[in-house]
Amino acid sequence: MIIVMKDKQAAQTVVTQAKSFQLNHVYRFENRVGFADIKNSAALSFINQDDVIEIIAEHPAAMQVSRTFHPNDTMIQTAHSQIGGDNFNLIAGPDAIESAEHVLAMGKSAKAAGATILRGGSYKPRTNPYSFQGLGEQGLKWHRIAADTLGMDMMTEVMSPADVDLVGQYTDIFQIGTRNMQNFALLKAVGQQDKPVLLKRGMSATVDEWLSAAEYIASEGNTQIMLMERGIRSFDQKYLRNTMDVSVIPVLRELTHLPILADPSHAAGVAEHVTATGLAAVAAGAQGLMIEIHDQPTKALVDGKQALTPEQMVSLFEKAQAIHDIVR
Amino acid sequence: MIIVMKDKQAAQTVVTQAKSFQLNHVYRFENRVGFADIKNSAALSFINQDDVIEIIAEHPAAMQVSRTFHPNDTMIQTAHSQIGGDNFNLIAGPDAIESAEHVLAMGKSAKAAGATILRGGSYKPRTNPYSFQGLGEQGLKWHRIAADTLGMDMMTEVMSPADVDLVGQYTDIFQIGTRNMQNFALLKAVGQQDKPVLLKRGMSATVDEWLSAAEYIASEGNTQIMLMERGIRSFDQKYLRNTMDVSVIPVLRELTHLPILADPSHAAGVAEHVTATGLAAVAAGAQGLMIEIHDQPTKALVDGKQALTPEQMVSLFEKAQAIHDIVR
Amino acid sequence: MIIVMKDKQAAQTVVTQAKSFQLNHVYRFENRVGFADIKNSAALSFINQDDVIEIIAEHPAAMQVSRTFHPNDTMIQTAHSQIGGDNFNLIAGPDAIESAEHVLAMGKSAKAAGATILRGGSYKPRTNPYSFQGLGEQGLKWHRIAADTLGMDMMTEVMSPADVDLVGQYTDIFQIGTRNMQNFALLKAVGQQDKPVLLKRGMSATVDEWLSAAEYIASEGNTQIMLMERGIRSFDQKYLRNTMDVSVIPVLRELTHLPILADPSHAAGVAEHVTATGLAAVAAGAQGLMIEIHDQPTKALVDGKQALTPEQMVSLFEKAQAIHDIVR
Amino acid sequence: MIIVMKDKQAAQTVVTQAKSFQLNHVYRFENRVGFADIKNSAALSFINQDDVIEIIAEHPAAMQVSRTFHPNDTMIQTAHSQIGGDNFNLIAGPDAIESAEHVLAMGKSAKAAGATILRGGSYKPRTNPYSFQGLGEQGLKWHRIAADTLGMDMMTEVMSPADVDLVGQYTDIFQIGTRNMQNFALLKAVGQQDKPVLLKRGMSATVDEWLSAAEYIASEGNTQIMLMERGIRSFDQKYLRNTMDVSVIPVLRELTHLPILADPSHAAGVAEHVTATGLAAVAAGAQGLMIEIHDQPTKALVDGKQALTPEQMVSLFEKAQAIHDIVR
Repeated sequence: MIIVMKDKQAAQTVVTQAKSFQLNHVYRFENRVGFADIKNSAALSFINQDDVIEIIAEHPAAMQVSRTFHPNDTMIQTAHSQIGGDNFNLIAGPDAIESAEHVLAMGKSAKAAGATILRGGSYKPRTNPYSFQGLGEQGLKWHRIAADTLGMDMMTEVMSPADVDLVGQYTDIFQIGTRNMQNFALLKAVGQQDKPVLLKRGMSATVDEWLSAAEYIASEGNTQIMLMERGIRSFDQKYLRNTMDVSVIPVLRELTHLPILADPSHAAGVAEHVTATGLAAVAAGAQGLMIEIHDQPTKALVDGKQALTPEQMVSLFEKAQAIHDIVR
Repeated sequence: MIIVMKDKQAAQTVVTQAKSFQLNHVYRFENRVGFADIKNSAALSFINQDDVIEIIAEHPAAMQVSRTFHPNDTMIQTAHSQIGGDNFNLIAGPDAIESAEHVLAMGKSAKAAGATILRGGSYKPRTNPYSFQGLGEQGLKWHRIAADTLGMDMMTEVMSPADVDLVGQYTDIFQIGTRNMQNFALLKAVGQQDKPVLLKRGMSATVDEWLSAAEYIASEGNTQIMLMERGIRSFDQKYLRNTMDVSVIPVLRELTHLPILADPSHAAGVAEHVTATGLAAVAAGAQGLMIEIHDQPTKALVDGKQALTPEQMVSLFEKAQAIHDIVR
Repeated sequence: MIIVMKDKQAAQTVVTQAKSFQLNHVYRFENRVGFADIKNSAALSFINQDDVIEIIAEHPAAMQVSRTFHPNDTMIQTAHSQIGGDNFNLIAGPDAIESAEHVLAMGKSAKAAGATILRGGSYKPRTNPYSFQGLGEQGLKWHRIAADTLGMDMMTEVMSPADVDLVGQYTDIFQIGTRNMQNFALLKAVGQQDKPVLLKRGMSATVDEWLSAAEYIASEGNTQIMLMERGIRSFDQKYLRNTMDVSVIPVLRELTHLPILADPSHAAGVAEHVTATGLAAVAAGAQGLMIEIHDQPTKALVDGKQALTPEQMVSLFEKAQAIHDIVR
Repeated sequence: MIIVMKDKQAAQTVVTQAKSFQLNHVYRFENRVGFADIKNSAALSFINQDDVIEIIAEHPAAMQVSRTFHPNDTMIQTAHSQIGGDNFNLIAGPDAIESAEHVLAMGKSAKAAGATILRGGSYKPRTNPYSFQGLGEQGLKWHRIAADTLGMDMMTEVMSPADVDLVGQYTDIFQIGTRNMQNFALLKAVGQQDKPVLLKRGMSATVDEWLSAAEYIASEGNTQIMLMERGIRSFDQKYLRNTMDVSVIPVLRELTHLPILADPSHAAGVAEHVTATGLAAVAAGAQGLMIEIHDQPTKALVDGKQALTPEQMVSLFEKAQAIHDIVR
């Protein structure tokens, strides 16, 4: 149940009262107070009715991330980026952190192309247990140094609640990967951090499942969340690794205030199609792109087949920016 | 088996010889001769080896529509449109033909917005047998008059081999709908016509199935074929009618020389998302868009929910053109 | 709108009146009269209210095939088979008719194993236009002779409205294939015939689409319809050609009175898994199975990979019968 | 690379040598030694060639769970159950543990119906963060007491690596849920335990992804793994929550030695269809079933809609046993 109060102060009073009654899952946005698990207004008889503007009984179960609770776009501010609204953000970097020199070189190219966020994995979710699993903390250190040297934000994946503190000592933005979209313990763990979280869509997650996963993060207090579409599982595995679901982008822009970005590298699976796939997402309304790059794709430790060269990235980012200017 | 000959004339000689041996499914493109169902070169011992440049034994089963057989883009020329290559084509009109006045009014708007092809259905493939099935020949007549009055090409769906002659008396371009993508008798029937065919993708057709369906048309002699992506069936029916499969567009541009267009009206299913979906397809490389319009969407006889108003179409087409200029 | 009258005679009176008012799509089942496209009871003021037991305003759009209109199971009677209800029917035969001797030999095996219906294709819906397309009328003749010789029903696929009369001169049961599930002209054509129709499910057809396709047949007057589940398109093409959708079987048994059969040969795609897949469908409630057989699978003209040998069929049918006895 | 040695002892010698060379991911099954991440036999020059029977260079990446490495069926022995091979196992219990009395009562019914494993969730993976999340350790205690009282094995879900030790103090079998199939940290954590693990299939996991997830557990040393099919995501959400993928069962029986069970409760989503769905899985070759039961389904704390009553369970288990006798 969402109660729209006459002003912020009245709303804050309601929150304070609710907490004194031990009510759980009470959240405020400006002059709105959301009671995430209360369906019956009788429980809210303590509220001063004179200050109530509107009672919204029908709202999505994933309340905090909905526009019903939070009508205007969320803006996420980091040291080097402002994400959301009409802004357009570029994230780039290697799939896996390989060495101090390599991540720095890739970061330099990324920054020159307009990226403000340097991505790279030190903990890699590999389908097979015997594949390279990432460099761990050593990778985090090199990644941090590169980001600091270049004046970029660092973003990296965290795969387990036990790693959240360690990863959080280095990164500026947590990435939650596709396979962990419904790893609820992990979502709660990053929900207790004070840093933005990028939440990738599960392989065949519905809109409701995805928004509910974001709500897990928000329910712990962290509302700095970005969503990232990365291609859904489809039926033609001969030619398509995944299908970039552009159709979900305008749907999400309508339902949620969170920024929506896209990852054409994983959607396409092969470098030749990353540009077309990425530009499609931008034209559909994505507020940013994340691209994997490598100077020598055939020698990449992970997923070289889908890595763009720095030159290809420059061309993609220029076109992406131009398309964003047309559609925003 | 594809035999690349030294020149067109030598290739034509091979074709003539092959026919004298009663060989079937022999096709020529410039200096290439394709034997669609011959896998063993021994059967081709009659060919003068001195004139052979290359023998291509490995080629897609859907040979004629592949770039292996026909490397450069197919260009389709109608009275008012040139489709394919770097061109960008706009098709618009009502879902169903409703009246002489209505199709003319919609055509006027479409033309003003830059469309050169006027679409509209007189034979409607409705899921339910008791729904309005289209006006039949009366609709074809009104459609033809509108197209002639406005100097546009007429495009309309044909649903049965028995209707091909009648529809062919009116239309400039045959449309084969999603549900009929593998209606092989119908594909053969339009394959015997001398007019372009637009072939929509089946609801969950693979790339190979789609190209093979196009090959059915080509196998009867008609190679003026356009492909149209219209959204695939996906798993989230609560928010998405279909998912526009932008990922298939760069794949097709690589595999086939046929023009690829997109239908965001059916992919999105609701007017609010048609623009974003359509622009995404253009950014991915679609060489044209087809849009359903209606001046009073809520009163449309069929699928009004997905119809854009003429004003919305103008805005979409302007942006689409701008994006096409960036990506082509 | 469905009107339940006090008895058959009263219902027939309503039908006669309705026709005198030129009402379309009026159908009767026992004492029920269904008006498929009337939603407002005002149009039915001519009905004598004293004879009305119940008015059912909410019913599926595919009215005739629903249990709302026709509560008890449809039983289909042919010369050699009774299909539906608690019966269990076996259909077997070669994928394609190959020769008079071959179809007779396969029929003999099929009959010995308990099959009463001899299947075989003379018009084959092949993905590729250059693949063997079936023997046409010659195949129909051999197929008819084999069925007559053995005292079995003949079932064969028809692919085009133009072929319905010819095929109908030979066959006892029409088969509509997966790719033609929404070939509405074909559905209407077999709907005008006086012979049972087996309607396979489309590759990714929803329940509503499938039942509406059956309704197309019924809307033309032919209500002797069987449904056949044959595997749906799924996402793991490496190991599974299709996924036998057993979950749809109990759903259909609830929604419709039409018999539901299953085709494990096409679902599995490889002979090794046909038995497990077929038995699963029976356990889920399928009222019959159709199996493709070949005495020399590796030499079959079409789809030999999925053909069981006659011996394997015997074992499958014995187990199927035993499982049906447990679950019916 | 798999090396088949002349006998167990020779194989063990190879393992000992390999460890002395610091080789990782070396596993032995009887007289076979598997080197999971070695592709070049030159690295294995230390092996005494006289004792080598066969070198298998081509094997699935998920080596340990494949029949290439471990040809015969895995048998899992617990205090009260023997799972795998020709055995058929029944698992039943409430979705969530609700009280000491309730789990005991449900366990009594389950045992009477033939179940040897008592399931129940104390940590519940709920789509929405505000839904009931389970009773935690209190639930584990009640669950343990019920299992001990009845002489049954206890099975319960674990959702986070941090909970593995605690849950392991109570449970006999760990359950990994659908959403965590690729939660690699969790898979590794249960891989270090000395208790059987039941691994449910992800919502749209391919066979290779599923087997690789099992391999994660095995790679840490725990090879007591069962797989559970629980329905895949499909495209018809109006009538089907999930589609029980019976087609995958014979495929898995061929590829892996691990026992395959099925969960018709989650596949069907509604009690009415649980029996048909469960029996289908058994007919397809599943070696056991897991069923959710509740004496008052409408009052269940979680997923009551899909719970069978104890009486319905008895009928299902009798039929399941009879079908298993036919197909095993």
